[in-house]
Amino acid sequence: MSSYISSETAKMVTDFRDERNWKQFHNPKDLAVSISLEAAELLEIFQWSGEKTGIDGKEDKVREELADVFNYCILMADACGLNADEIIREKIQRNAEKYPAEKAFGSSKKYTEID
Amino acid sequence: MSSYISSETAKMVTDFRDERNWKQFHNPKDLAVSISLEAAELLEIFQWSGEKTGIDGKEDKVREELADVFNYCILMADACGLNADEIIREKIQRNAEKYPAEKAFGSSKKYTEID
Amino acid sequence: MSSYISSETAKMVTDFRDERNWKQFHNPKDLAVSISLEAAELLEIFQWSGEKTGIDGKEDKVREELADVFNYCILMADACGLNADEIIREKIQRNAEKYPAEKAFGSSKKYTEID
Amino acid sequence: MSSYISSETAKMVTDFRDERNWKQFHNPKDLAVSISLEAAELLEIFQWSGEKTGIDGKEDKVREELADVFNYCILMADACGLNADEIIREKIQRNAEKYPAEKAFGSSKKYTEID
Repeated sequence: MSSYISSETAKMVTDFRDERNWKQFHNPKDLAVSISLEAAELLEIFQWSGEKTGIDGKEDKVREELADVFNYCILMADACGLNADEIIREKIQRNAEKYPAEKAFGSSKKYTEID
Repeated sequence: MSSYISSETAKMVTDFRDERNWKQFHNPKDLAVSISLEAAELLEIFQWSGEKTGIDGKEDKVREELADVFNYCILMADACGLNADEIIREKIQRNAEKYPAEKAFGSSKKYTEID
Repeated sequence: MSSYISSETAKMVTDFRDERNWKQFHNPKDLAVSISLEAAELLEIFQWSGEKTGIDGKEDKVREELADVFNYCILMADACGLNADEIIREKIQRNAEKYPAEKAFGSSKKYTEID
Repeated sequence: MSSYISSETAKMVTDFRDERNWKQFHNPKDLAVSISLEAAELLEIFQWSGEKTGIDGKEDKVREELADVFNYCILMADACGLNADEIIREKIQRNAEKYPAEKAFGSSKKYTEID
C-alpha cells in the first residue's frame, strides 16, 4: 500500500488554510499542540479496546483521524519552511545509525537499550 | 514550501521496518500510541516557551521530531492498508463541508461553534 | 487502595517549585503542555506491549510516571487557583448526570452513544 | 491554594466506577491511554491561543478537564494497587536529586542539561 502524498494533495491542504485566512493562527507552538490533539483523537478510537489491537469496525474513523494528523503535519512543515520529503529521509538516515539492522532485527527495544 | 512525500521516500520508511523485522509489533493500537508519543516529543520542544511560539534555535529538533510523526503516520497507513493521499483528500472534502470558506474566514472557532 | 493526596504532600510539591523559583515558568498553557508530556511518558511504558495490558515488570516505571502526572496536575491546580478536591467532586456530579448508573452499567460507550 | 485530595473524594471516584461495573475495562494500558486523552482535552482549551498563556474566560473548562485528568490518575493508581500520596513523595525525593535547588534555581533546563 503506497503512502506517498502527492504535491497536488499537499497543495490542497495549504490552499484550504489560505482560503479561510487561517495562516495567522498557525504558529509552530499551536501547530504542535494541534498535532498532539489530533493524535489523541486517533488514539481515542482504541480506548477501552483491551487486547483487541486491530481496526475491525473502526476503519472509517481511522481514515478520518489519521488524515487529520497528516494534515496538521503538512501544515506544520509548511509553517516552518520544511520539506517533508527531505526531513523524513534525513531521519531514516539517523535511525539507521541508531538501529543497525543486524542488532535491531526482531527487537522492540529502544536504541538506548540495544547493544 | 512543498510538503509532498514521494513514493520512494514512503517505501524507504516501510523498507526500514521490514529490514528489522518490526512489522510483527506494528498493530494499529500500538501505532496509534506511537504517533501520540512522537507528537509529544515534537510538543516538548515548545515546553516552557511561554509566549514565544516560533522555532528560533529549535529548527533542528523540529525537523527531527516532525519527521518521526510523519514516519509513524506512514507506518500506520501501511499497517491499516490505507492510501495516505486518498484519505487526506477525503478529509479535505469533509472539512470543506464543516468549514465553508465564507463562514470560517479568519475565525479559529470550532465548526460546532460557527454559524 | 487509597488514592488520597494529603495536604502535606501537596505542599511538598509546591514547595519544591518555589525553592527553585520555577513559578515564573508555570503559566497555565505550558502546564497543560507538561501534563500532556508526562501522560505520554506514562503511556510509553505500554508502547509495543500488544495484547499485554498489565504492569508486570513495569511497576517501578508506572509509580514514577504516574507520580509525574499527579505532580503537574497539582501544580496546574495551584497556578489556576483551583481546589483539586472541589473540582473532582464537581466533575463526579456532572458525570453522574451524563452516565446514570442504570444506563451505563457494564457499558464502555461514550455518553453521547448511550440511550 | 490547597490541592490535596481527601480520601472521601478518592473513594467517590472509585465508587462511581464500581456502581457502573466499569472495573472490567480498567486495565492499566487503557487507563494510560485515557489519561493521555483527558490531558489532550485539557490542552485543547489552549489550542490557537498563541501568546495568551492564561485562563481568562476559560476557567470553567479548565476546572472540568483538569478534574478528568485527576480522576483517571486516581483510577490508574487504584487499578495498579499504588498509593498516590506515597508515589508522589517518592518522586519528589528523586526530583530533588536530579534538580538540586541551588543548581536549578530559576532555570527551566532539563536535568540532563544543567551542570
